[in-house]
Amino acid sequence: MSDSKHIAFLGLGVMGGPMAGHLLRAGHTVTAYNRTPARAQAWRDRFGSDGAAHIAATPAEAARDAQIVISCVGNDDDLSQVMRGPDGALATLAPGGLVIDHTTVSARIARALAQECADGGLHFVDAPVSGGQAGAENGKLAIMCGGTPDAYAAAEAVMAAYAARMVHIGGAGAGQTAKMVNQICISGIMAGLSEAVRFADAANLDMDKVLDAISGGAAQSWQMENRWKTMAADEFDFGFAIDWMRKDLGYAIEEAKALGVSVPVTALVDQFYGEVQALGGGRQDTSALIRRLPKGRR
Amino acid sequence: MSDSKHIAFLGLGVMGGPMAGHLLRAGHTVTAYNRTPARAQAWRDRFGSDGAAHIAATPAEAARDAQIVISCVGNDDDLSQVMRGPDGALATLAPGGLVIDHTTVSARIARALAQECADGGLHFVDAPVSGGQAGAENGKLAIMCGGTPDAYAAAEAVMAAYAARMVHIGGAGAGQTAKMVNQICISGIMAGLSEAVRFADAANLDMDKVLDAISGGAAQSWQMENRWKTMAADEFDFGFAIDWMRKDLGYAIEEAKALGVSVPVTALVDQFYGEVQALGGGRQDTSALIRRLPKGRR
Amino acid sequence: MSDSKHIAFLGLGVMGGPMAGHLLRAGHTVTAYNRTPARAQAWRDRFGSDGAAHIAATPAEAARDAQIVISCVGNDDDLSQVMRGPDGALATLAPGGLVIDHTTVSARIARALAQECADGGLHFVDAPVSGGQAGAENGKLAIMCGGTPDAYAAAEAVMAAYAARMVHIGGAGAGQTAKMVNQICISGIMAGLSEAVRFADAANLDMDKVLDAISGGAAQSWQMENRWKTMAADEFDFGFAIDWMRKDLGYAIEEAKALGVSVPVTALVDQFYGEVQALGGGRQDTSALIRRLPKGRR
Amino acid sequence: MSDSKHIAFLGLGVMGGPMAGHLLRAGHTVTAYNRTPARAQAWRDRFGSDGAAHIAATPAEAARDAQIVISCVGNDDDLSQVMRGPDGALATLAPGGLVIDHTTVSARIARALAQECADGGLHFVDAPVSGGQAGAENGKLAIMCGGTPDAYAAAEAVMAAYAARMVHIGGAGAGQTAKMVNQICISGIMAGLSEAVRFADAANLDMDKVLDAISGGAAQSWQMENRWKTMAADEFDFGFAIDWMRKDLGYAIEEAKALGVSVPVTALVDQFYGEVQALGGGRQDTSALIRRLPKGRR
Ligand SMILES: NC(=O)C1=CN([C@@H]2O[C@H](COP(=O)(O)OP(=O)(O)OC[C@H]3O[C@@H](n4cnc5c(N)ncnc54)[C@H](OP(=O)(O)O)[C@@H]3O)[C@@H](O)[C@H]2O)C=CC1
Ligand SMILES: NC(=O)C1=CN([C@@H]2O[C@H](COP(=O)(O)OP(=O)(O)OC[C@H]3O[C@@H](n4cnc5c(N)ncnc54)[C@H](OP(=O)(O)O)[C@@H]3O)[C@@H](O)[C@H]2O)C=CC1
Ligand SMILES: NC(=O)C1=CN([C@@H]2O[C@H](COP(=O)(O)OP(=O)(O)OC[C@H]3O[C@@H](n4cnc5c(N)ncnc54)[C@H](OP(=O)(O)O)[C@@H]3O)[C@@H](O)[C@H]2O)C=CC1
Repeated sequence: MSDSKHIAFLGLGVMGGPMAGHLLRAGHTVTAYNRTPARAQAWRDRFGSDGAAHIAATPAEAARDAQIVISCVGNDDDLSQVMRGPDGALATLAPGGLVIDHTTVSARIARALAQECADGGLHFVDAPVSGGQAGAENGKLAIMCGGTPDAYAAAEAVMAAYAARMVHIGGAGAGQTAKMVNQICISGIMAGLSEAVRFADAANLDMDKVLDAISGGAAQSWQMENRWKTMAADEFDFGFAIDWMRKDLGYAIEEAKALGVSVPVTALVDQFYGEVQALGGGRQDTSALIRRLPKGRR
Repeated sequence: MSDSKHIAFLGLGVMGGPMAGHLLRAGHTVTAYNRTPARAQAWRDRFGSDGAAHIAATPAEAARDAQIVISCVGNDDDLSQVMRGPDGALATLAPGGLVIDHTTVSARIARALAQECADGGLHFVDAPVSGGQAGAENGKLAIMCGGTPDAYAAAEAVMAAYAARMVHIGGAGAGQTAKMVNQICISGIMAGLSEAVRFADAANLDMDKVLDAISGGAAQSWQMENRWKTMAADEFDFGFAIDWMRKDLGYAIEEAKALGVSVPVTALVDQFYGEVQALGGGRQDTSALIRRLPKGRR
Repeated sequence: MSDSKHIAFLGLGVMGGPMAGHLLRAGHTVTAYNRTPARAQAWRDRFGSDGAAHIAATPAEAARDAQIVISCVGNDDDLSQVMRGPDGALATLAPGGLVIDHTTVSARIARALAQECADGGLHFVDAPVSGGQAGAENGKLAIMCGGTPDAYAAAEAVMAAYAARMVHIGGAGAGQTAKMVNQICISGIMAGLSEAVRFADAANLDMDKVLDAISGGAAQSWQMENRWKTMAADEFDFGFAIDWMRKDLGYAIEEAKALGVSVPVTALVDQFYGEVQALGGGRQDTSALIRRLPKGRR
Repeated sequence: MSDSKHIAFLGLGVMGGPMAGHLLRAGHTVTAYNRTPARAQAWRDRFGSDGAAHIAATPAEAARDAQIVISCVGNDDDLSQVMRGPDGALATLAPGGLVIDHTTVSARIARALAQECADGGLHFVDAPVSGGQAGAENGKLAIMCGGTPDAYAAAEAVMAAYAARMVHIGGAGAGQTAKMVNQICISGIMAGLSEAVRFADAANLDMDKVLDAISGGAAQSWQMENRWKTMAADEFDFGFAIDWMRKDLGYAIEEAKALGVSVPVTALVDQFYGEVQALGGGRQDTSALIRRLPKGRR
């Protein structure tokens, strides 16, 4: 296949594993690196039928013969570890190569890596995703991208393997800041929804009828349509974890400070998520925000 | 027409005027009362072509020969004035009559009026609406109802003239508490959206591209789809006014206290709306919440 | 004694009982009314040794031969009940009489009663207190007063029996608004202190040493000096109850809205107090605000 | 003088300059380093009369012949620059030496430096101060200290030159966390006070009388006693700057997250301070928090 590439994929977690699988299915050769080797084995067992799936012991090794490096790890520190230093991917990726980072990290590190790549003759795209585990499995992620037009164009052709929607927002870091915008919106929505569900429940309202009455209007949200019933049923064991959300909100709050804007409700909700973590809910869905609110007198 | 009714309509404002117009169109006889008489004249001039539109000098006079009384005034005090006392509609409506209130008021007064009606052999439905001026004009309101099954059934047949959706939520007051749930959700959404728009603007992002990237996912809301661009353009002169919103949130916060539930973000947003009122934005759309947030350093 | 007065005292609760006792000790004749008769008996048994303590069955009866009516009941509704209507004190107090209200109520009702008194040829002083049960017992209350200079002068002479400090703030209602200022300040202080104690504890700091280090500087407050150690020890069973505080904050938030000012942290803390009520802490001291904050990982 | 020491002092700013001056007065030999050389000259001109005041070009040079290194710079990055690397003080301070840091920084860097010092045979005390510029000028600072008992004992003898109060809170980092406790308390106090002043002003109350009435009771605070009148007069040009406060709150919020505690009001006030920065108030006193609140309708 003419546009088949050699791709180094770093981080085979809940998101990265299936994304790397889609790349194989699209005909690319993938050399994967995962910090915990067992997970790399499991990934090859699951996706790697035809010899196009390889495993490397370090990011540098994975990137050595690659044209493209794609990462999806945890946070700023993690990203720094897989990219920088003698074992990092940037040490071996040949000039002209492309780096796509799908990790949700700070705009600061995205801009720094873009600069480091530029200095080394590499292209960089910050490309955080939304759509969750389901989106990664089904190849239906939404991807927000920052980088030069050339870098984006090259990245788009590859990311198409697992994207339902790709948008080139702007220059380096713009993908990350767009993702922050997304998380800021969700914070407010979840705060209102949590209070609304507790209120409706305490008022002894028929939860389905309330949803029916209000979900077609100005109070509607994706979260209302998808989480109202589960929140009312105290079900939180799916979706995007609060521990991840606090990481993302931390970056958003830091960036807001740098931009000179105030995000009071976001900062408050971040603290409220801390209360849910203290209740043991860190691995639960962001809709578990409701857990910190005592139930009413009903 | 067999199901043509004699209806007293109290309050021909932005919402009530067109609603009463739809009743005429549906074949009912409407005797309207408006505190400011000129508005009643204007209403008859606009809607009353065939002699079915009458004007009364007091609510009591309007209700005297009516089978149904419908109100859409401002707040608790206003509702009390048009319903109670010697000039109020309850003084003259004949036993067996039906009262439908479309005003957004407290659940307390809704329950009290339901009781007063029951004591007088009348039926009562609290029936706050959503959908705004456009919904009233187009006859496409969503109506949340509280009351007995019989009362609701009778009300439904009439309200169909201007409703796109009617839901019988529960007993007396349940319509109002469902509306409060709606407003609590909107508070959180608007808070997040305001911070997000300011953030995106300060980050110098292309606002249309951000919307494109995030409006299909977990951050989506009706408000995002309908207000993102106008907020980014500082346009707030349409839609549901902040002065009304603070009234509604006041009732919601009071009811939350009575129900023993906490609504911290709602209470905070209510205060933030107070800051926008102080900036002169009381008559602007609820999306003007963003006005209290300084623009970033950009 | 030349300045001995006939005083009707309404409400012999935690605050009112000892206050009325001080009036007896100061040589006044006191006719007391308490809704629950047993409490009036207990009061006379405790304070009424020399025949100057009488008990009346209604506020109106207590006020019939009085020159001064003093009230210390619960909230707006309670105050309205003991003052207004055929059994209320205003029905029988002779023209020229003075009404002093020590209840913490809304400025609205204070202004309304001042007007009603003026219409009936009576003087009115709104005179909420601070200093708590200990202040009432020891006669060391601080009293914030609103009313005409004449009314205040007359009230001052009597209130001296139980006051450590009396300040004439301004016209009718000014005593109540000053008390609201007091409660707004306390809300912020308690919020900071709660978070600080949890933080210090989670950081495993020696709580006494921290107090020693910071209580002499810019972070100092009466609450820090008096509640730091008890909060650290989870002791909340003394002082001003959260149920009362929420009443007071409700009036303050309502008044802020009327005044066109925003009180976001006060409104937030009010909701947080609601969470403590839901945890069963309504009768505990305002410092129990800390209870809603989970303890750290320590 | 037997306990006269050779001291390297890094950072001759608003705080450090006068502190280093007190050390000279106490008989120590001080070699000062300041990033901007002119400031070092000005310092020697002001304080260095008898030949005990020297100036070095780098922290390493200042520390070469010193027994003690004292720093008072800006933030974590600044501290790292003056301590670490080839030009940093740790590169030259002889084993057995003592490092005292008066900068308000993160507990993380304090613990890291303590460890680095221990590894190099040095003692380290984190010793943030309170008392402001006046305290530094008058030698009346309160100092919160973290470190080993030996390190603290050695530091105490020297810091006495400018301290009114020194408290050894605990191990490395405990000085910084105690300072965070201080700033958390202040955040809540300033939030309440800001809303209270705006409220009192809108209610048209006599500000002096309100202060008189409430400053003796449960709402009292150092800030109330010292800032009530200046806030009411819109005077903010003195005292601890908001830019510094946000730095401190940033560290506190980060540490709270690490400790697993929630600081919602602190996080909210931090954002509100961001709004005051956007209004141009970053260099103003923390009491300028009130500036973000619109004045009432008065
Ligand atoms: N506007 C909107 O988008 C929406 C509004 N609502 C709710 O619907 C209700 C009406 O809103 P809207 O129509 O926009 O308001 P308007 O101000 O346009 O109309 C209010 C009507 O009530 C009458 N009224 C008010 N007070 C009294 C009184 N004391 N005695 C007699 N009549 C009185 C007014 O009479 P007069 O002409 O003399 O002033 C007027 O007819 C409110 O509760 C609002 O919250 C709900 C959803 C959307
Ligand atoms: N406790 C404190 O530390 C402080 C309290 N305050 C304020 O002082 C006021 C009184 O507080 P406190 O004394 O503690 O309260 P208590 O509950 O101890 O006493 C309340 C008194 O009011 C009477 N009362 C209440 N409702 C009515 C009614 N509807 N009709 C007739 N009598 C009524 C009660 O009668 P009965 O015995 O029949 O219940 C009782 O005598 C409150 O407004 C409170 O906010 C102010 C500062 C400090
Ligand atoms: N001001 C106050 O009221 C209080 C301040 N503090 C804390 O004390 C510390 C100092 O405050 P303050 O004296 O007011 O601040 P100033 O800005 O007046 O002084 C800061 C000093 O640090 C030096 N400095 C900053 N960054 C560096 C760097 N990267 N390398 C070398 N030197 C550097 C500056 O050098 P240069 O002259 O070259 O800029 C200057 O000497 C801060 O952490 C502050 O939070 C604590 C309590 C009260």
